[in-house]
Amino acid sequence: MSKLPSINELTAPLIDHLITYADALRCEVTADASGVIIVDAGINCEGGLEAGRLISEICLGGLGIVELTHTNHVENWPLSVYVHTSNPVLACLCSQYAGWQLSHGEGKDAFFALGSGPGRAAALREPLFKELAYEDKAEEVCFVMEVDKMPPTELLQSMCETCGVEPENMTVILTPTSKLAGAVQVVARVLETALHKSHELKFPLERIIDGAGSAPICPPTPDFIQAMGRTNDAILFAGRVQLYVTGPDDDARELAKNLPSSTSKDYGKPFAQVFTDANYDFYKIDQMLFSPAQVSVTAVDSGNTYFGGAVDMKLLSQSFGG
Amino acid sequence: MSKLPSINELTAPLIDHLITYADALRCEVTADASGVIIVDAGINCEGGLEAGRLISEICLGGLGIVELTHTNHVENWPLSVYVHTSNPVLACLCSQYAGWQLSHGEGKDAFFALGSGPGRAAALREPLFKELAYEDKAEEVCFVMEVDKMPPTELLQSMCETCGVEPENMTVILTPTSKLAGAVQVVARVLETALHKSHELKFPLERIIDGAGSAPICPPTPDFIQAMGRTNDAILFAGRVQLYVTGPDDDARELAKNLPSSTSKDYGKPFAQVFTDANYDFYKIDQMLFSPAQVSVTAVDSGNTYFGGAVDMKLLSQSFGG
Amino acid sequence: MSKLPSINELTAPLIDHLITYADALRCEVTADASGVIIVDAGINCEGGLEAGRLISEICLGGLGIVELTHTNHVENWPLSVYVHTSNPVLACLCSQYAGWQLSHGEGKDAFFALGSGPGRAAALREPLFKELAYEDKAEEVCFVMEVDKMPPTELLQSMCETCGVEPENMTVILTPTSKLAGAVQVVARVLETALHKSHELKFPLERIIDGAGSAPICPPTPDFIQAMGRTNDAILFAGRVQLYVTGPDDDARELAKNLPSSTSKDYGKPFAQVFTDANYDFYKIDQMLFSPAQVSVTAVDSGNTYFGGAVDMKLLSQSFGG
Repeated sequence: MSKLPSINELTAPLIDHLITYADALRCEVTADASGVIIVDAGINCEGGLEAGRLISEICLGGLGIVELTHTNHVENWPLSVYVHTSNPVLACLCSQYAGWQLSHGEGKDAFFALGSGPGRAAALREPLFKELAYEDKAEEVCFVMEVDKMPPTELLQSMCETCGVEPENMTVILTPTSKLAGAVQVVARVLETALHKSHELKFPLERIIDGAGSAPICPPTPDFIQAMGRTNDAILFAGRVQLYVTGPDDDARELAKNLPSSTSKDYGKPFAQVFTDANYDFYKIDQMLFSPAQVSVTAVDSGNTYFGGAVDMKLLSQSFGG
Repeated sequence: MSKLPSINELTAPLIDHLITYADALRCEVTADASGVIIVDAGINCEGGLEAGRLISEICLGGLGIVELTHTNHVENWPLSVYVHTSNPVLACLCSQYAGWQLSHGEGKDAFFALGSGPGRAAALREPLFKELAYEDKAEEVCFVMEVDKMPPTELLQSMCETCGVEPENMTVILTPTSKLAGAVQVVARVLETALHKSHELKFPLERIIDGAGSAPICPPTPDFIQAMGRTNDAILFAGRVQLYVTGPDDDARELAKNLPSSTSKDYGKPFAQVFTDANYDFYKIDQMLFSPAQVSVTAVDSGNTYFGGAVDMKLLSQSFGG
Repeated sequence: MSKLPSINELTAPLIDHLITYADALRCEVTADASGVIIVDAGINCEGGLEAGRLISEICLGGLGIVELTHTNHVENWPLSVYVHTSNPVLACLCSQYAGWQLSHGEGKDAFFALGSGPGRAAALREPLFKELAYEDKAEEVCFVMEVDKMPPTELLQSMCETCGVEPENMTVILTPTSKLAGAVQVVARVLETALHKSHELKFPLERIIDGAGSAPICPPTPDFIQAMGRTNDAILFAGRVQLYVTGPDDDARELAKNLPSSTSKDYGKPFAQVFTDANYDFYKIDQMLFSPAQVSVTAVDSGNTYFGGAVDMKLLSQSFGG
């Protein structure tokens, strides 16, 4: 079997590109007091679609191909993001998944963020890495945070210590969800949601050999809850994913049946409403909700394909407006 | 705010690629008597789809992503070009727009061309650059001309003087509209037409923060008027564009309503006929005609999206034939 | 006219990329006893969609653009491959076409493969190269073989001699058809089948100036006959191609009429069945079967476009299952 690559090393050229062409991409590069390199993709600058596309490839640990394109998948919303990777479990779960819970301070000054990106495989703070027996103690690491303010210096310093890197070797990219770059990089998680939910459904990850996904880019909106809601809804109501899996047909059939968002008990209204109804507490929301609208699962050992879910135009329109 | 990049510098690697791989791209590179580098993409050589795609990215000042792909947008014509940029106003208006009127000689030997490309921001002969407060006095500049003959040496020399560059530091790319490369690079202006018409409609350009567009590639045809007509019609009858704008909802709603080509008084027949009926005088044609068939405008300050226009299959078929 | 490029030289950077990032692409690089470099894209490793995409660009002699994307072309199977090139005859026929019949040994240990890739233009064992007056005696050459076992050392040595290269300067990529990388790189031959059949139909190749194609990615299946069948059926029942040709309209009209797979006497059932009914003898199958479902041919000297064929969802579903 081939050796697992270093996702932080694979990502380094993309980060160089983002920093070198920051002006062209309408991003801002600064150094935090700690020395950590901060790339702002929408707080004090505009960012945009292409910044979001590039950051999505960074999120995928240098293993992902992310394209923006026009499709005829959903009426009124042709602009879509399409994603595949050279190694889906590594790219989506060890890098792109926003799995590291980061917080600093308390009360109204508290900072909270979910860290995604290849740096997670250096931090190793999530059980997933032990389960997948993957670590990437690279010299340079990178994180993406969906936040609208600068992270505190103390938090950044602590992250460096956890990863065992010098501050100047850590890059943190900030993508507010209410801006275009942020919207693109969340919707580009369409394939990741399928892998993550497969994991929640106890489907063995080593049996997911490949996949591809797409979803429409949602219109940005200034309200954080609405913005986050739309990025989720793009996936929940109109995301399409193929998975290719090994093992018995029954498992592939079950996966195709259970994977779509519509199987969740919380399915049926725009996500902003779901979140509000849960009193803004993520952990009260059914984790099975976070998945694509429509899936196909091919059992490569038999060659049979199973289908599940469907696009839900009515709910998508409720969410996106217009 | 981030600094504006040099579009001529950003374009340089693409021009190097075009010249290095000219044989593979079926283009011809020569030096004019003045020393200016001429890249022929269809006069004495074949050019082709990929040459056209690459030249479209050059037209966009190195800020554009141009993909050819197959869609199901219009029956019979799946081959489409999709465009987005990392900075739409800079890419489309300061570079791609064919705004520099170039002419030399008189009578039947007269040469006339509209110059597009990042060199326009070094020439600074258009009021737009003052309005946008952008200039790019680069050491190497590049222009694209939609012509089917070599530009006169005197004109090239005069262009060098205007730009303040040595002739060997100017590259001029020639793309006859009747050939494939020429067709692709015109249809790739679908997003630019939306920005240019927004400007004509007095929508403040600094409020257009991003956009994306696509249109079907028209079949090339040897007659110049027909060929030019089809490239316009691809946009006018089947172009799709999203814009993302700041400011009040009313402005976004108005823009979505007025932006589509169908609002023009000259809408309703293939462009070759419009041009013929105007006695081949561009300036008699309603400038509001040059815009996509179908648009959406998202007001990012409210999150609301407004829609306008529609694909016109009947007129597209009249234009493309078949 | 522009000079013809060296397809082996153009391919070299793509091979470097494949080898450098072999771990990330889940491929395995080894040296055969002869010294020839072997890249395994699915025998003892997983390979995958992205490996297949990259190998497709290698097959096209460095002249091809191969994208994976989601379309709405055929129900249930959005994942598609789209292809165009900077020089279609050179890319598809002098490189991608699997035209070199390679064999070694006899009886049950016999090894048989069809060699594709730019190395064919160094081997020059096919009449096509004389007809097209193209040869590429490069120092480094590359082949792709659709096989599920390692080629014998003696065969590799003999191939080096034929090409006039040292073993360490030959790369051979192995892509089993039953795996994803193999499936992608066969389906990416959709444009090539149109060019090859045009040649069979005696349409002069120098009059095909450009083209583009797409087809859905078939689900892999372990049975070799079924797997090969599905890759062909993706093209035969759902492939779409545009060609742009010079010369009289009558020729373009005839080409559009005769090019689609449905004109073949062997059309009407999944290819695995056709092959079985022919007692597994390729040469008993009508060669006119191997072509896209749906074509358009634009006569660029008149500007008229002719259409032929149609997608056949019923047969596609029979083949792909599900």
